[in-house]
Amino acid sequence: MLVIMRADANLEQINRVINGAQERGYRAHLLRGADQTIVGVVGDGTPKLEEWFGGAPGVQEIVPISKAYKLTSRDFIRRDTVFNVDGATFGGPGIVIMAGPCSVESRAQLLETAHAVKEAGGHMLRGGAFKPRTSPYSFQGMGEAGLELLAEARAATGLPNVTEVMTPEMVPLVCRYSDMLQIGARNMQNYALLHAAGESQHPVLLKRGLSATIEELLMAAEYIMSHGNRRVALCERGIRTYETATRNTTDINAVPVLKARSHLPVILDPSHSTGEAQYVTAIARAAIAAGADGLIVEVHPNPKQAMSDGQQSLTPEQFAALVRQVAAIAAAVGRG
Amino acid sequence: MLVIMRADANLEQINRVINGAQERGYRAHLLRGADQTIVGVVGDGTPKLEEWFGGAPGVQEIVPISKAYKLTSRDFIRRDTVFNVDGATFGGPGIVIMAGPCSVESRAQLLETAHAVKEAGGHMLRGGAFKPRTSPYSFQGMGEAGLELLAEARAATGLPNVTEVMTPEMVPLVCRYSDMLQIGARNMQNYALLHAAGESQHPVLLKRGLSATIEELLMAAEYIMSHGNRRVALCERGIRTYETATRNTTDINAVPVLKARSHLPVILDPSHSTGEAQYVTAIARAAIAAGADGLIVEVHPNPKQAMSDGQQSLTPEQFAALVRQVAAIAAAVGRG
Amino acid sequence: MLVIMRADANLEQINRVINGAQERGYRAHLLRGADQTIVGVVGDGTPKLEEWFGGAPGVQEIVPISKAYKLTSRDFIRRDTVFNVDGATFGGPGIVIMAGPCSVESRAQLLETAHAVKEAGGHMLRGGAFKPRTSPYSFQGMGEAGLELLAEARAATGLPNVTEVMTPEMVPLVCRYSDMLQIGARNMQNYALLHAAGESQHPVLLKRGLSATIEELLMAAEYIMSHGNRRVALCERGIRTYETATRNTTDINAVPVLKARSHLPVILDPSHSTGEAQYVTAIARAAIAAGADGLIVEVHPNPKQAMSDGQQSLTPEQFAALVRQVAAIAAAVGRG
Amino acid sequence: MLVIMRADANLEQINRVINGAQERGYRAHLLRGADQTIVGVVGDGTPKLEEWFGGAPGVQEIVPISKAYKLTSRDFIRRDTVFNVDGATFGGPGIVIMAGPCSVESRAQLLETAHAVKEAGGHMLRGGAFKPRTSPYSFQGMGEAGLELLAEARAATGLPNVTEVMTPEMVPLVCRYSDMLQIGARNMQNYALLHAAGESQHPVLLKRGLSATIEELLMAAEYIMSHGNRRVALCERGIRTYETATRNTTDINAVPVLKARSHLPVILDPSHSTGEAQYVTAIARAAIAAGADGLIVEVHPNPKQAMSDGQQSLTPEQFAALVRQVAAIAAAVGRG
Repeated sequence: MLVIMRADANLEQINRVINGAQERGYRAHLLRGADQTIVGVVGDGTPKLEEWFGGAPGVQEIVPISKAYKLTSRDFIRRDTVFNVDGATFGGPGIVIMAGPCSVESRAQLLETAHAVKEAGGHMLRGGAFKPRTSPYSFQGMGEAGLELLAEARAATGLPNVTEVMTPEMVPLVCRYSDMLQIGARNMQNYALLHAAGESQHPVLLKRGLSATIEELLMAAEYIMSHGNRRVALCERGIRTYETATRNTTDINAVPVLKARSHLPVILDPSHSTGEAQYVTAIARAAIAAGADGLIVEVHPNPKQAMSDGQQSLTPEQFAALVRQVAAIAAAVGRG
Repeated sequence: MLVIMRADANLEQINRVINGAQERGYRAHLLRGADQTIVGVVGDGTPKLEEWFGGAPGVQEIVPISKAYKLTSRDFIRRDTVFNVDGATFGGPGIVIMAGPCSVESRAQLLETAHAVKEAGGHMLRGGAFKPRTSPYSFQGMGEAGLELLAEARAATGLPNVTEVMTPEMVPLVCRYSDMLQIGARNMQNYALLHAAGESQHPVLLKRGLSATIEELLMAAEYIMSHGNRRVALCERGIRTYETATRNTTDINAVPVLKARSHLPVILDPSHSTGEAQYVTAIARAAIAAGADGLIVEVHPNPKQAMSDGQQSLTPEQFAALVRQVAAIAAAVGRG
Repeated sequence: MLVIMRADANLEQINRVINGAQERGYRAHLLRGADQTIVGVVGDGTPKLEEWFGGAPGVQEIVPISKAYKLTSRDFIRRDTVFNVDGATFGGPGIVIMAGPCSVESRAQLLETAHAVKEAGGHMLRGGAFKPRTSPYSFQGMGEAGLELLAEARAATGLPNVTEVMTPEMVPLVCRYSDMLQIGARNMQNYALLHAAGESQHPVLLKRGLSATIEELLMAAEYIMSHGNRRVALCERGIRTYETATRNTTDINAVPVLKARSHLPVILDPSHSTGEAQYVTAIARAAIAAGADGLIVEVHPNPKQAMSDGQQSLTPEQFAALVRQVAAIAAAVGRG
Repeated sequence: MLVIMRADANLEQINRVINGAQERGYRAHLLRGADQTIVGVVGDGTPKLEEWFGGAPGVQEIVPISKAYKLTSRDFIRRDTVFNVDGATFGGPGIVIMAGPCSVESRAQLLETAHAVKEAGGHMLRGGAFKPRTSPYSFQGMGEAGLELLAEARAATGLPNVTEVMTPEMVPLVCRYSDMLQIGARNMQNYALLHAAGESQHPVLLKRGLSATIEELLMAAEYIMSHGNRRVALCERGIRTYETATRNTTDINAVPVLKARSHLPVILDPSHSTGEAQYVTAIARAAIAAGADGLIVEVHPNPKQAMSDGQQSLTPEQFAALVRQVAAIAAAVGRG
């Protein structure tokens, strides 16, 4: 449930609400937007907010919420959420481009890719240290050694990084090395992980589940935001359909729908949404034309030898061409 | 089956192949590309082309085809197919924009829309005279009276038109009034209709079935082309998925996939592929950014009073804005 | 629109309604159920039934219908529709089994199969003379010669037959040779064909489209019934989903849903809904257990040499085993 | 990778293989079937099994596996896996029926349901103590208090229970109270959870993900079995498709496909696969007719007041009728 504070509410009034909820055994957290201050109250049972705070000084309205997403909704927070990850801006006037290998495989591979991404104009480095794999017999990632390499690549190039986290317990470890947590498609409804990511207060890139609806994606983001973590970016990465010509079907409609329903930044992953390097650049252009705030793209110095996702990885040269073409589209839609 | 002629084959050699096939009871038709001349042979039973024409003068190769599409394939005809429909160019350096109401409803409605489309910069007028409707109790279109209005609008504005044809017998009637035949999603595998459209030699806009694969769309186009009709444009109009936030899911991947596999022009219909006016322009921009050769868009002077598809129809003002934005994207991808 | 007659309405009263509608330019047809007599009125424009017939003798109620299906709905006709096709009963206490080859290929093949179907306990022979094929280069069926063989097989075995019709013009021809018209999945929304099948007054087996919803299937049946043809059976034949382990996904839920929403008999086609002979019998059993009124099954004397659908065809021995197993399930659910 | 032991291999020979793999830093576990004894070896890098054990006494064959599932495959273990959960048999000649409320809500609700399930002939009690919910604001389950009630219900009725576990850390707690771990659809690819369930050696009911393929379900089971846990049952619970008439689409084809590809028991959940109480019994019958080894069904003393899934819950009376009908089908397919 949400307690909407008046525009002129002062800190004491706000704290009285937060403390009042916590004393009664509920989690309470502050959400400060440009327009509004909201206290979110979450917990078991039904908080009697109306009874506790109705008419209290500084309180404007009490909103009972049950099924719908609220904190992620543009109905509640009208202005676009804009946030910064070590110099990379999400949801601002420009667009943000993350790129790098599917998996961190070695020091040489990662550093070479990081320099190429930097040079081509990318803003962040991506790379998986922990890999969710369909088969228990596939390469599962380098683990902490991979995280160390991501940190080393940041030191060498200045690029902040984003990397996947797969379990709640790993969240503190990954936060130590990484600038943004990625929650993968398979874990979009792993609620313990969403809670942990929310509590970490670290920026989160939340990927849409393979067959998740747009509503379910927003609800998953709501789990993270219900812990007061506002730095969440939503990522469309293709959905599962009957069509087999491409690995997934890019739901390009999701871009304007998410922008209409939510204030959160929207990222598109054309590598997973097509599954084929030859189509990645066309879909990257389409994403920005449709209004996406950024891209996450797989790049590998030698795609044919990649340990995972080689078929959909661009070479550094192809990535540089993508950045140039995407910049032209960004300019055509009025974004730096 | 296909007989590929040598680049230096002369007319007599070509005719000998055509006549030879026809004398044996098969349909034969000439397909002349910029690079290649091909004789397509279709009929019941198995034509013994190797036996009849193997080694004949002017014959380069004989290609047995069974399951795959060939005439629509870029493997066979490498250069883009470009054709003209009364001044509107499909598949050329520029893009083509068709627009108009879902249904022709009245003289006033159609003429008002036609003038608005012309003024905004559209190249062709769309409008349904025969409407396939899910319910037998819904408005089924004005019929021939609607066709007459389309012809009148052409006389008044100079805009050629495209309109749907639903049965083989109606093909000659629709050809009399209309510049391009539309085959709708529900009829993509109505083979008698595909044959009739092929035989008419009229330009055809072939819409992808609601749940057709890209391969099936190309196979449906192959039916039309197997009658020697080369003026076929392929239209992505959204596919059916589990997502209910939009009426259909725009398969934007289909744009680069179709351009890679086929030489035919690719059109996108953002009105049906989203089902909501507020998302149409974003998806129109995305289509051109992804490489589509054109758009078909629903426009109505008063969407709220439309007899069909009002929710997804743009007003004339919204359409004019779409044309401006799409022009900026076209320029960004190097298309006039 | 529907005019519901009173239970005690006499023939003169009923005729007055029918003639009144026809004089005003509408199609009117009588639907007589065990419980109710209904006059259906269909045509362009909005019939003013209330004005014409409201309060007329024998008239109980006037039902304006726009979007929904009505004649196919159990809300209107509560008792199960039961009809007979030359000795085979659809929708009765027992179940009906149709079987035979995908395509009629030759006299020997068809007669051998017909005798095997008869001997195993099948009630009707299936076989395609006109084949809708994805590729224009595939075998398209024997045409009228195939229909003649179906009639010959009936003479030899006493089995009535069901065969596909693909265009409105072919309906009279197919009715001459065949006992039941099949409308295939690709043509479920070929409205001209639905109208022609309705007008023929011949029994119809209507297959669900590849990606049609249950509502759309009922609406397609409504087109047929709106011509007064009540002998329609609905056929679930698998839908298109992301799963590739089987050719289609049998929507077994559709069986109880269709039985709840409609009074029409429900048939299941386990050959197409699985696409693999090894799974056909299990799904046939499931269909009857779920409440289906019958089955249509592909049987071929030599599946490996079938010109189409060999992979999903049963041998005569496998079919005989299917009939025995299905009979045990039918008994377990209280159906002879 | 797998080391297949000879039928006459003795314990010493088997232990030599296990110890040899462990000394080299790999996990090794014994899989004893009726026909075969296999040592599974899992770990990072590529175990050199051929080099280590090729030709060693008692070793029959070494099988390199990379992408495919193996331990779950019928190619490796030909006989049906049969196991017992406190008196309830999975995969045996009879069928197993689990039933109970979606959520454990209170002592009275759970005990009343447990007695009703027992009386009607059910074999196990289901009930969720930890609930994965789409919204963070929905009821998330009673937690450990719910587990205690499940244990109390077992003491009162003798029914073993199955309940969902959502995180790896909760596995030991849930194992203390519960006889079988359920892994829910949203967590089918939560690999940390699959590993923990595998290590627990507790019986596992693994539900198919909302949009998982049959192959992916088997791969998820492989994760569990790769820890040597052989007591895994696979549960079809409906997949996500475009059809909205039911909550999910029961993939009945999955039943014979899973039985053909795997030796593991197959359970069907008609409550989730339909989402409507009125269709549950028909689909339960279909499941057993198709060859399923058991059912899991939602039952609530008062479905209208259920805190979750009331629409798809049966009353005790409806459940008793289901058991009777399913028993008739089981007899018809030769299963007690």
